[in-house]
Amino acid sequence: MTEAPLTVDDVRGIWPILSTNERVEAFQQVERAESGTFFLGLSAHEQVEILLSLPRGERRLWFRLLPPDDTADVVQHAPDDEREGLLELLDPPTRREVTALLAYAEDAAGGLMSPRFARLRPEMSVGEAIRYLQRQAQEKLETIYYAYVLDREQRLCGVVSFRDLFSAQPGKSIAEVMRTEVVSVPDTMEDEEVARVIARHNLDALPVVDEDGRMKGIVTIDDIVHVVQEAATEDIQKLGGMEALETPYMQTRLVDMIKKRAGWLSALFLGELLTASAMAHYEDRIARAVVLALFLPLIMSSGGNSGGQATTLIIRAMALGEITMGDWWRIVRRELTAGLALGIILATIGAVRVVAWQGLFHSYGEHYLLVAATVATSLVGVVTWGTLAGSMLPFVIRRFGFDPASASAPFVATLVDVTGLIIYFNAAELVLGGSLL
Amino acid sequence: MTEAPLTVDDVRGIWPILSTNERVEAFQQVERAESGTFFLGLSAHEQVEILLSLPRGERRLWFRLLPPDDTADVVQHAPDDEREGLLELLDPPTRREVTALLAYAEDAAGGLMSPRFARLRPEMSVGEAIRYLQRQAQEKLETIYYAYVLDREQRLCGVVSFRDLFSAQPGKSIAEVMRTEVVSVPDTMEDEEVARVIARHNLDALPVVDEDGRMKGIVTIDDIVHVVQEAATEDIQKLGGMEALETPYMQTRLVDMIKKRAGWLSALFLGELLTASAMAHYEDRIARAVVLALFLPLIMSSGGNSGGQATTLIIRAMALGEITMGDWWRIVRRELTAGLALGIILATIGAVRVVAWQGLFHSYGEHYLLVAATVATSLVGVVTWGTLAGSMLPFVIRRFGFDPASASAPFVATLVDVTGLIIYFNAAELVLGGSLL
Repeated sequence: MTEAPLTVDDVRGIWPILSTNERVEAFQQVERAESGTFFLGLSAHEQVEILLSLPRGERRLWFRLLPPDDTADVVQHAPDDEREGLLELLDPPTRREVTALLAYAEDAAGGLMSPRFARLRPEMSVGEAIRYLQRQAQEKLETIYYAYVLDREQRLCGVVSFRDLFSAQPGKSIAEVMRTEVVSVPDTMEDEEVARVIARHNLDALPVVDEDGRMKGIVTIDDIVHVVQEAATEDIQKLGGMEALETPYMQTRLVDMIKKRAGWLSALFLGELLTASAMAHYEDRIARAVVLALFLPLIMSSGGNSGGQATTLIIRAMALGEITMGDWWRIVRRELTAGLALGIILATIGAVRVVAWQGLFHSYGEHYLLVAATVATSLVGVVTWGTLAGSMLPFVIRRFGFDPASASAPFVATLVDVTGLIIYFNAAELVLGGSLL
Repeated sequence: MTEAPLTVDDVRGIWPILSTNERVEAFQQVERAESGTFFLGLSAHEQVEILLSLPRGERRLWFRLLPPDDTADVVQHAPDDEREGLLELLDPPTRREVTALLAYAEDAAGGLMSPRFARLRPEMSVGEAIRYLQRQAQEKLETIYYAYVLDREQRLCGVVSFRDLFSAQPGKSIAEVMRTEVVSVPDTMEDEEVARVIARHNLDALPVVDEDGRMKGIVTIDDIVHVVQEAATEDIQKLGGMEALETPYMQTRLVDMIKKRAGWLSALFLGELLTASAMAHYEDRIARAVVLALFLPLIMSSGGNSGGQATTLIIRAMALGEITMGDWWRIVRRELTAGLALGIILATIGAVRVVAWQGLFHSYGEHYLLVAATVATSLVGVVTWGTLAGSMLPFVIRRFGFDPASASAPFVATLVDVTGLIIYFNAAELVLGGSLL
């Protein structure tokens, strides 16, 4: 670390590769005017890292800078034995707000919302509302640009944007100018679904209500960017055949990362052990025609690759809400056609390869045409089957209540490998029976 | 299609599975009050689909509802021969705005921005500015909540939030209350980078400037949600071993989808053909010890799976900006350790399996301990190598200027398959030479 003062951009550039101690040191060297924005832009995980390394006085200062929804996130990301200590740094009203938020699951609408929204009464005039919001402008509200109209039981009856207020006649009542068809979500809704609602309705802020219809907070679109980003990262990691990491790659301890990877890798390995058993069944056939073994990796990987494509497409389309469980039969028809077409393409390349190598190197003996036919037939079978199995697996997994993203490409490949080699050896039996076999 | 009027939620529920004609019909049945929001919430691709199916009068009405950045998106998504016709539906000033936006690449900041932002002069008073913004509230500005302070050459000199204005003394000048450290981006910046800037600085809106520093527009955070979502979808599809689709799965024509998949599938197949050549090299060894063939799929898939995990992790971390090119050496050390640990875990399972099956079924003859040793040794080698290769491939691909997401798990698996079988047969030679071989 150099002694010259660091700019915030310097720190951003090297941030990902710094150790915790280096981060705290760098953070403390940033100019005060800039470090606030910098701190607010960090992930909850990084904020915890910094806060817990600062002396108590500084820790309080920075912790109190966070809005209540982010404060709750930080407490949730902190180690169990630090949570109480962090909560004690807050002033009593904020502590009450944050404690209420902590009752929600982190990935629910309630865990995402801010309780600090602007409230209006339906009988207020537009002029009164503007003056009220003007007084609130310096308060810690999440936004003053959307104000929610609540009745005496705190039930949501309408919404007005500041822009609407500003262009309305000051004498009108809020009840006259508010929009009454308000989209709201229950506090228990899962965060990815909240993101979909916000995107679908083109909203900047979305009110959250409890089971009695009382408004509890708002989720703003900037919270959603993180949700979308994190959901995609989790899905990508699951699709890569491992458990999702809880922290960024570079900040994940090596032993934790190995654990996240070893579980699925071992499960896939156990599944793949079935290939050894299946192969044993065909051992005598390989002994009679070693040429069969040559094409085995090729056939099996083609099934896995085509299945991986199909499963990836379906899982992503499901995550985006483009397809639902009811669409499975359409998908079967679509993927069956696609699988056949892809199988025929690969079969053609495979057959050409066998015939060409025979012409060039006389690699496959007198029965080379039959070998080519075996390779081509099994490619059509394996690719069609791989594609179909890959597209249906996410439906099956979801049907049993699990996350379809667990139907990773390697999972599909493992499933398809055993069936792939059964298809291959049966095709060989059919085509080569009586000649090579 | 039923004759009863549809609610907008009905339409949303069935939307993904409707044909174009059914969509248009459903859209026209939605109540006018709701269909505007619904239309604005559709993707550019879907907006084109609807617009081009409507009669000319209605088409103009809906097309003019879109803000200029979305209008430009629609024109870009329309077939070439329809673009001129769409532009003619606009009033002349909007057409000029949209034509200016069309000069930018769709995935650049300039293609994402809205030119309709609120402008202030530094010498205005706070009171004047508020009155000015109030007059603009009903105009088609993207937002009145952030106003940008420009000098006479249209260069950006500061920003004020409406909230700041509202709590400032009306007599002060804008120059006194504006913030001068404004984050802005060049109009040529790629959209994913724009998303990172907005997230990192916790912004609701980001000004875009041309090469002379003149302000051209703003990108708002709601534009970014789509960018993040689409970027993740593209990466996921590439990681699944295919080209990214341009349209949602269900709306992609089957022939286009097969093309997107066949390219990579054939390339992977050609790569995998090398395994057939490599296998031919070891043909006599397989003939001597058929037991070797039994474990081949197991060993090869383990290399592919471990490589796929590593490459997925690195590609996602790169996309999120968590790691940069300079980190490659740290990654090598990390992944080498992880690969060794994972290899030892799988080797243990593999060896136990061979010994257990020998005990239960006498499957592997007198040299079963040597077979177990061969399997275990090659698993350590293949998994370590797969992990290392998988983690470095994204760096290599990026070094050559391509998208690291092309280093898909199947690509890595194919690379690792050939080397995997070389490792396996050499380990066999080493361990079994003189006994089985």
